Formats: sequence, C-alpha cells, structure tokens
Amino acid sequence: MKLLEDAIIEKGTILPGDVLKVNAFLNEKVDPELVEKMADEWYKLFKDTKVDKVATIESSGIALALLVALKFKCELVVAKKGDSTNNDYFTASVFSNTKDKDFTISVQKGFIREDENILIIDDFLANGSACEALISIIKYAKANVVGIGVAIEKEFQDGGKKLREHGYRVESLAIIQKMEYNNHVIVFKHKEG
Amino acid sequence: MKLLEDAIIEKGTILPGDVLKVNAFLNEKVDPELVEKMADEWYKLFKDTKVDKVATIESSGIALALLVALKFKCELVVAKKGDSTNNDYFTASVFSNTKDKDFTISVQKGFIREDENILIIDDFLANGSACEALISIIKYAKANVVGIGVAIEKEFQDGGKKLREHGYRVESLAIIQKMEYNNHVIVFKHKEG
Repeated sequence: MKLLEDAIIEKGTILPGDVLKVNAFLNEKVDPELVEKMADEWYKLFKDTKVDKVATIESSGIALALLVALKFKCELVVAKKGDSTNNDYFTASVFSNTKDKDFTISVQKGFIREDENILIIDDFLANGSACEALISIIKYAKANVVGIGVAIEKEFQDGGKKLREHGYRVESLAIIQKMEYNNHVIVFKHKEG
Repeated sequence: MKLLEDAIIEKGTILPGDVLKVNAFLNEKVDPELVEKMADEWYKLFKDTKVDKVATIESSGIALALLVALKFKCELVVAKKGDSTNNDYFTASVFSNTKDKDFTISVQKGFIREDENILIIDDFLANGSACEALISIIKYAKANVVGIGVAIEKEFQDGGKKLREHGYRVESLAIIQKMEYNNHVIVFKHKEG
C-alpha cells in the first residue's frame, strides 16, 4: 500500500537491531486518515470472508483494529499485555525481539466464543510470536482464525513465512524486504501482477 | 448519554472499592458502534471549538480518541504508560486509585507543539490524576487544553469538580452519582433542562 510505504519512508525511523519506529504516525502519534485508509484496504481484501469478531493486541493494534471492526460491523477484542490475575482469562506467552524478553497476553474467557470467525489485525509481523500467541488464545476458545491483517511485515524475519506455511491467510499492507540502519535504506516487496 | 448508561447498566460490573469494570464493551471487548456514537456526541459538544489535536492515555482511551480525531480531521497523540527511556519525552506521574500505585505517562517532545489546541479524550474521570498528568504534559509543551471529553465520570470522586474549578470544560457522557457494590446500584446524574 503506497500511502503506508510513503509514511514509513517519510516518518519512520530505523534503529539498530532491525527495529523500525513508526511512533510518529501509527501509535504514539496517529494519523487517523491513514489508519482509515488502511482499514479500507483490509476490508477490501477480506470482505468476502465471514468475520464475526476482530482481535488485536494492546495497544498499538487498537486504532487499526477498531476501524476494521467498524467496517465489518462487529465487535473488537483487545488482548491485554501483562499477567492476568485470575482464571477467567486465557493467556499465552510472547517473546519480544525488540525488548528481548517474554510477556504475557490475555483475553477474558467468553469474549471469544466457540466457532466464531476471528480476523486478527496487528501493526507489526516480525518473528510472529505475538500473532502465534493470539492464535493460541483463539484456539483455546475453540474459535477460527479466518485471516491475519498486518500493517508492516518484516519479511527478513520468518513470522509471515511460518504463518502462511500453516495455512493462514496473511495480508500485509507493507512488506519490508530489507532494512539498513547505517544507510537509512528500506526496501519494500511488492506483489506480482 | 442514554446509550452509554444502558451499556453500563447491562454490561458493566461493580467491584469493591468503587471500581466499575467496563471491559465488556469499552476496552477489552469493544462495541465499535457505541464508540462511534460517543465520538459523534463529543463532536457535537466541541465542534465550535478549535481543535488541532486530540490527546489520550494508553490504552483504553485510544478507541474513543481515534474516532474523535477522525471527526475533527486531526492527529491523535497517545500518552504512553511506563517510564520513558530518554530525554526526548515529557513525563508526568499518575496515582491510580484502582491499582493503589503510581505510574508514569509520557509523550515524545514535538508530538504536541507550542500553541496547539488540544482536546483530551479519556474513558474514566475519577480522582482526576491521569487527566491532570496529561494536562501537565500539554503545558510543558506550551499548548492549550481546550476541552476534556470523558466517557464515564465518577462524580463522588472529586476529579471533575477540581478540573471545572480550574476552568476546564469537562464533558462527560455518563456521570455516576452513586455506585453501590452490595446492592448492584448505579445512579446517574443528568444535566438540567
């Protein structure tokens, strides 16, 4: 999606360790018009899929996922970060490359129900650990993952590859093939055709 | 706002210590249609005010604030919870009654600029500590707070009273006058006229 690629080039910052900071337009400061256009794009991609709920992870996925849920006229479930305090929650562990440590995400039991069709929306897909944790929770709830919409996929990490090999439909609006801290270079991959 | 009051009655849970849980429709599971109607209501209330940016606090304010920012066609700034790692951020301390401890919120310098007119949107107003912290940050940035839109105000705590006494325009969509854990009673206050 050209608009998102342009925003990444103009407003993104590459940090050492393959970290891409997009806090100037996607999380700490948010450009709502861009986010709405991204939601339109996901809606176009998934509109023939039956979606009962949209799910995301706290907190940078919320803005994106909310607008997608509005388009599908369905509820949004936000997995909380941090240990849940009781048995009312499904939990799963995530390894964060960026922070080099584990954290837990949790969803209250009953917020995702058996047989529901869930569309996952998130801001980043790198090693896929966060997405896999959310998929585990959706499976604990005996619901189905019908698609995964990602804003920015780092193709040089293997999260997207693994998820697609497992049969999930992953739609990333910007796919980064290569990112160079020293040269300030970002190379995007484009779909054929 | 009747729709919000109905949702609080139907889906909210009162916990001991004057805690109202609204995770079934406002944060962990979100009803996007309700959130959109709340944003419409704030837009109606503040539409004659010059708003350059909307500001909120991570993470339960994001969904609400994003839709308000979309209506005002302006950017949204999300104050992060947790200590900032460097001098690039303005920070302020918040005392959470619910969790009985302090936490820090932070906004990157430059994300709010001098003389900008900022509309604060947040989910709860109780003792007002979170809102006051965000106001401090906006003042550090030499910008103006032109209004405060709150989803649920607990009138029996004094945050709203203090803010109004300081001259801020606070518009709460649901004002709780009394909340009784044992009797499952919530009494709302309505505007005269």
